[in-house]
Amino acid sequence: MRIHQQRLRHFTNLDSVIVRFGGEIGIKSEWTRQAYEKLLLKNVKNTLFHFGLAPEAIARRRGRIYVETRKARETAMQLTRVFGISSVSPAIKTTSDMPTLAITALSVADSTIKEGTSFAVRCNRVGTHLYSSMDICREIGRQILEDLKGRNLHVDLTNPQCTVAIEVWEKEAFVYTETFQAAGGFPVGSQGKVVCLLSGGIDSPVAFWLAMKRGCTVTPIYLDNTPLTDETSTQKALEIAKRLFEWSIGYSTKMYIIPHGQNLETFMNKAPTKLTCLLCKRIMYRIAERIADVEKAEGIVTGEAIGEQASQTITNLRVLDEAAVKYPIHRPLLGFDKVETEALARKIGTLGISTRKAKGCCAAPSQPATRAKLERVKKAEEGLEIENMVEESVKAAKTVIVQLDETY
Amino acid sequence: MRIHQQRLRHFTNLDSVIVRFGGEIGIKSEWTRQAYEKLLLKNVKNTLFHFGLAPEAIARRRGRIYVETRKARETAMQLTRVFGISSVSPAIKTTSDMPTLAITALSVADSTIKEGTSFAVRCNRVGTHLYSSMDICREIGRQILEDLKGRNLHVDLTNPQCTVAIEVWEKEAFVYTETFQAAGGFPVGSQGKVVCLLSGGIDSPVAFWLAMKRGCTVTPIYLDNTPLTDETSTQKALEIAKRLFEWSIGYSTKMYIIPHGQNLETFMNKAPTKLTCLLCKRIMYRIAERIADVEKAEGIVTGEAIGEQASQTITNLRVLDEAAVKYPIHRPLLGFDKVETEALARKIGTLGISTRKAKGCCAAPSQPATRAKLERVKKAEEGLEIENMVEESVKAAKTVIVQLDETY
Repeated sequence: MRIHQQRLRHFTNLDSVIVRFGGEIGIKSEWTRQAYEKLLLKNVKNTLFHFGLAPEAIARRRGRIYVETRKARETAMQLTRVFGISSVSPAIKTTSDMPTLAITALSVADSTIKEGTSFAVRCNRVGTHLYSSMDICREIGRQILEDLKGRNLHVDLTNPQCTVAIEVWEKEAFVYTETFQAAGGFPVGSQGKVVCLLSGGIDSPVAFWLAMKRGCTVTPIYLDNTPLTDETSTQKALEIAKRLFEWSIGYSTKMYIIPHGQNLETFMNKAPTKLTCLLCKRIMYRIAERIADVEKAEGIVTGEAIGEQASQTITNLRVLDEAAVKYPIHRPLLGFDKVETEALARKIGTLGISTRKAKGCCAAPSQPATRAKLERVKKAEEGLEIENMVEESVKAAKTVIVQLDETY
Repeated sequence: MRIHQQRLRHFTNLDSVIVRFGGEIGIKSEWTRQAYEKLLLKNVKNTLFHFGLAPEAIARRRGRIYVETRKARETAMQLTRVFGISSVSPAIKTTSDMPTLAITALSVADSTIKEGTSFAVRCNRVGTHLYSSMDICREIGRQILEDLKGRNLHVDLTNPQCTVAIEVWEKEAFVYTETFQAAGGFPVGSQGKVVCLLSGGIDSPVAFWLAMKRGCTVTPIYLDNTPLTDETSTQKALEIAKRLFEWSIGYSTKMYIIPHGQNLETFMNKAPTKLTCLLCKRIMYRIAERIADVEKAEGIVTGEAIGEQASQTITNLRVLDEAAVKYPIHRPLLGFDKVETEALARKIGTLGISTRKAKGCCAAPSQPATRAKLERVKKAEEGLEIENMVEESVKAAKTVIVQLDETY
């Protein structure tokens, strides 16, 4: 009975997190892999310290980071939001000698496997041991069946209801039952810098997130349509930026806010109504290019998807693209359906903010051009002193440092 | 007993398919929606006739196409591969008067709901009837419980093991138990035309597919590296194109094959080794622009993902982009991890072909530039008469019409 109690205490006292990053990082060359792993370790530490989850110890090994912490579950959940990690498991650390390992595994089994269910024991092993991985699975499986024989359990290796998983690393071992998928991608900071045209809508935050996921550091540029919209839009964009920056702890949280209402009014008053959205986006690209210059960024990320809106038909995307002369426009959502973008926005944590009521843009015409001619758009721009408008906008740009919460 | 047999015959004789296209099409303006729905109907018909699944009747209604066919299951499966459709259900057609509807629903229940399980009845209804949707669910649920009382069934509206679903449309009604998710997106042909740089690899076919999914008609351009690779690569690309064109039945199956080996040899012999891949891709973009001119396409689709390869770092994507002056480069995979691209390739049906052994490109250097300077790349191009190389390649371009199978 004493042993039984000890086991349960063990299990409720999860003390480690296994962090895996095989996916994208694993396929890189040795040199790149090493650099990415080190960067990932730095990002993991920054994230944990930021959210008050400072670990007792943290160690990087090939394809793994092992975190020792009394807050294993919270730490694991937080790390699902660090790019470069493929999955995490809260675990109990023990030693790799079979008797000790077995005691831990049995205590985990005791508190996890329910009456009348199926289970499997799985094992990953690195190092030289007196046993093989198969030996562990067999021996511990046998002991579980014996130890819990009152529970009417059976082994199912194909589709078990509960898995007792064991990871042996040299003299250490970890026992766990749960694995959570993490965000994947590359560690933030492993790729170059980009700027992102961020609105309060659903799409652009997802595009921003996908650029971060692939390792970019991203600086948001928000075009403020006041007085054609109200303050709630800016507020939404700021809250969205905050949510996004929570996925790149340790990196800049600077956001550009650029007055754009006057530009829009000029387009509404002095250009064909059908073209308002195209002219608006083209000047946004130009402004973004100027900010990219300042930020030494190497591309501009936007939330456009093919055919999603009138301004995003294949024809109009070409008209838009022509306005960016110095930087590529990166559109990670090109092939996304709205439902797919929304699902991702929900996971990211921005959907609720994006769908909150706000005064929308009232400059959008009811019958926008869906197949605009580039010549007509350029002609419309000719009389407008576009370069001057860009200059004025960039001059009036403000930057804010978005403050992040420090609780998880 | 006679009735029982009749019921079973009814159910095994599925005679209809409900085709839904709420998703992307549903959020469009009335005019666009009408145009897209008509186009979708045309694409559906083309697909079914092509694969020898000519229906007995086909009707478009708001948000639905109803297909009458003796091959309901095969038809439904085939239609999951027509873009613009969100989901399909093989069904039995009946009339909307309650007694007849009930007989059909009971026969379906009889042959579907297993001993000791839970079920629910759900109903969608359009038109004026003597009953409400709720009435149908209640009445038919009650009759199922009564009729099959020997089976120990219970109703579970939250998470039933079997759902008997009923769709009432004016005087008609459909009963079904299965719904299959379809490919989503917009009907092919609803967006403009693009060309796509298609290789025998994993990524570019997925990018091609995503452009189709968003309604584009796509013309593949294959750059043939012979003699630096062998014929198997071209063969793979042709097979991949065939698989892709199966998703856009009724549209052109033309593919461009362009000799590229000599270009590559020039780069290998006369330019810095580190830059080979960038020079190769830049000339591919230029060739694609020339083909886009010929095809009256409005963009170039490629399979690049941020950081996926050395040539695809954010820095290098900018260097690449600079080579395309007339058309936007659309990269739908920018934010995809390799595992995500592979999962999609598996669904599309191209993964098996892409991963088949072939002599890879032997021009790729072991230490490619990951942060190339545009000036150095342009300088390397200066001595090479790039325009001439493009001209020669385009002159030597061949087109093939890819033959599609006509069996499903």
